Amino acid sequence: MRTVHRSAVAFSVPVTFNMYQSKRKFDEVLPEVIDTLLKSPKFTKQLPEVRSWVEKLVNYTIDGGKHGEGMIVPFAYQKLEDPKYFTEEKLHSARILGWGVEMCLGSLVALDDIVDTSTMRRGQPCWYLLPNVGTSAINDCFLVYHCLLEVIEMKFGKEPFYSDLVNLTNQEVLYTGIGQSLENSLRYTKARNNLDKFTMENVDAVVLNKTSYFSLRYPLHLGLLLTKNGKERDTTELVNICLELGKILQFQNDHKDIYWDEASSGKIGTDIQEGKLTWFAVAALERCNEAQRSIFKQYYGSKNPEHEKRIKQLFDELQIDKVYEEFRNSMYESLEHRIHKLPRKEETEFCLEIMEAIRQQNF
Amino acid sequence: MRTVHRSAVAFSVPVTFNMYQSKRKFDEVLPEVIDTLLKSPKFTKQLPEVRSWVEKLVNYTIDGGKHGEGMIVPFAYQKLEDPKYFTEEKLHSARILGWGVEMCLGSLVALDDIVDTSTMRRGQPCWYLLPNVGTSAINDCFLVYHCLLEVIEMKFGKEPFYSDLVNLTNQEVLYTGIGQSLENSLRYTKARNNLDKFTMENVDAVVLNKTSYFSLRYPLHLGLLLTKNGKERDTTELVNICLELGKILQFQNDHKDIYWDEASSGKIGTDIQEGKLTWFAVAALERCNEAQRSIFKQYYGSKNPEHEKRIKQLFDELQIDKVYEEFRNSMYESLEHRIHKLPRKEETEFCLEIMEAIRQQNF
Repeated sequence: MRTVHRSAVAFSVPVTFNMYQSKRKFDEVLPEVIDTLLKSPKFTKQLPEVRSWVEKLVNYTIDGGKHGEGMIVPFAYQKLEDPKYFTEEKLHSARILGWGVEMCLGSLVALDDIVDTSTMRRGQPCWYLLPNVGTSAINDCFLVYHCLLEVIEMKFGKEPFYSDLVNLTNQEVLYTGIGQSLENSLRYTKARNNLDKFTMENVDAVVLNKTSYFSLRYPLHLGLLLTKNGKERDTTELVNICLELGKILQFQNDHKDIYWDEASSGKIGTDIQEGKLTWFAVAALERCNEAQRSIFKQYYGSKNPEHEKRIKQLFDELQIDKVYEEFRNSMYESLEHRIHKLPRKEETEFCLEIMEAIRQQNF
Repeated sequence: MRTVHRSAVAFSVPVTFNMYQSKRKFDEVLPEVIDTLLKSPKFTKQLPEVRSWVEKLVNYTIDGGKHGEGMIVPFAYQKLEDPKYFTEEKLHSARILGWGVEMCLGSLVALDDIVDTSTMRRGQPCWYLLPNVGTSAINDCFLVYHCLLEVIEMKFGKEPFYSDLVNLTNQEVLYTGIGQSLENSLRYTKARNNLDKFTMENVDAVVLNKTSYFSLRYPLHLGLLLTKNGKERDTTELVNICLELGKILQFQNDHKDIYWDEASSGKIGTDIQEGKLTWFAVAALERCNEAQRSIFKQYYGSKNPEHEKRIKQLFDELQIDKVYEEFRNSMYESLEHRIHKLPRKEETEFCLEIMEAIRQQNF
């Protein structure tokens, strides 16, 4: 059961979960998105196999999850647009772009699952493990991404902000790819013997690239693009706060990967076995004595389940879970201060709601 | 040793291999492309691991091959631009875009190699088989593609034709993905028992999507975009001829996959083992008696090398190699007629040279 976090009551701006109040409206737009895609001349002239495959593929990779990333787009438009210029049409566009974010994310996580040899995602078998999929899933991930671009072209190809939409999308996916690549090249293996790379600075670099840019900055910027003069607005601090929220989101995911079971998280953790550079690994290393450090070096990044168990035991010995809780709470606290200092009430509300959604595992 | 094809002498327009005469100029532009990429603010602010990985990745995936696809761009600009408007600067731009095509192609073939579990490409081990790569190669393929888009933005972001460049690129990669997906869903397996899908119509649909659009139409259109009024020109027949040339290119690749050894083709064939729908499979099926058809059904699409051998033996019994030679020659012949009927001499020359390069395995 979900419980409201203690400090939520201390917010001076009430957290109403407006973002999720319009979830039904958001969901109602999905059929229009799929329909737009399948009505594209690039698909109508194809063999029926193509259309049915793409329909199944897009639906499967979008499915599950709370769609927090996608819902930021309409929420940002609703909150940050000057009421004088607000239109229902633009809000509708924001919802479509929100599904674009979800398609893109679906493509990236389906790809990530192959890279990490994961088995479950959002409580379902990973796409690449379905019958008749296998390695062709890699092509499918490319395909979903280009389907998103096709939807954007079909819906907004003639809008003055079209080019910005495409550039923004490409840019944030590039950063995600950089983040994934960085994560891979910093992965610990005994052969590489590269624990000197396990620093908090490097954790930050990975997380910014692979999560914060795409999951928070991208949908925020999409929403802003739809607002009047959104491109000209100074959003430096707003964006910086979103990037920090993205970090919390990633740390939370990493926490789930290590500490949650499959039933609760919908997937099976692989980070320890993959030798991933995470906040938890670095926090543990910072607290290791010499004997513990050599256990880390011996067993981290091994596929052997016994070795993984030994690392989890080490984390317990070092009470990393408790260290994390304190660290997370201090992150929330300092962010809250910054959020309240934002120049406009709507920006404060926007950030507080996203923060609360993340805090309540509702993002 | 390469020998000039018999019928080359019959061309009324001399085939001069102009396209390859400027190969040195083309090669000289590559360092500028890599340099542009690494100087992008998206890379300069990253950890050194990112820059060195991307540099290695892009160079490796571009390397080898004859770069026929990429060289079409400057060749098209040179041939098809009105001499009144021709500039060296635009030609230079065409060379840069040519390397963009090669980056995109490199990304797609590296991805294809993972899907097909290939081992060699252009005489080198496939990227995903290199040490420290593995499944993260999938992310790398995404990354190379977005690096190409970054180069386009850095070089042409302020040009009036920028949006067209990006749309064209996304569009042709979408078609390639559709082609790959179609190919996969039409793959023969005993369990699917889907030989009814092995028709020449379906072969054409796969080949158009996965090869012709990207390898021929895309670089042609990039070259045309740089010419004065290139977008307004009626190029229907020119494009149709290019699409046919793309088909020949694919059939040639499929021929290599079955009939060439590793030393000659630089890779090891997997089409029979993967149960691919190819011209060769359909041509064989069209000529099978009942006993031969049941051998096909029994052994096609099996990873067992003995089964692959049996299929190759069946192809030999049916003299598919000879059937192919006749079919290919008739394709060349009918294309030659159409090429000579093109309204402008430059278009004829353009197509003849590409056709000859393909014919001489020099593309």
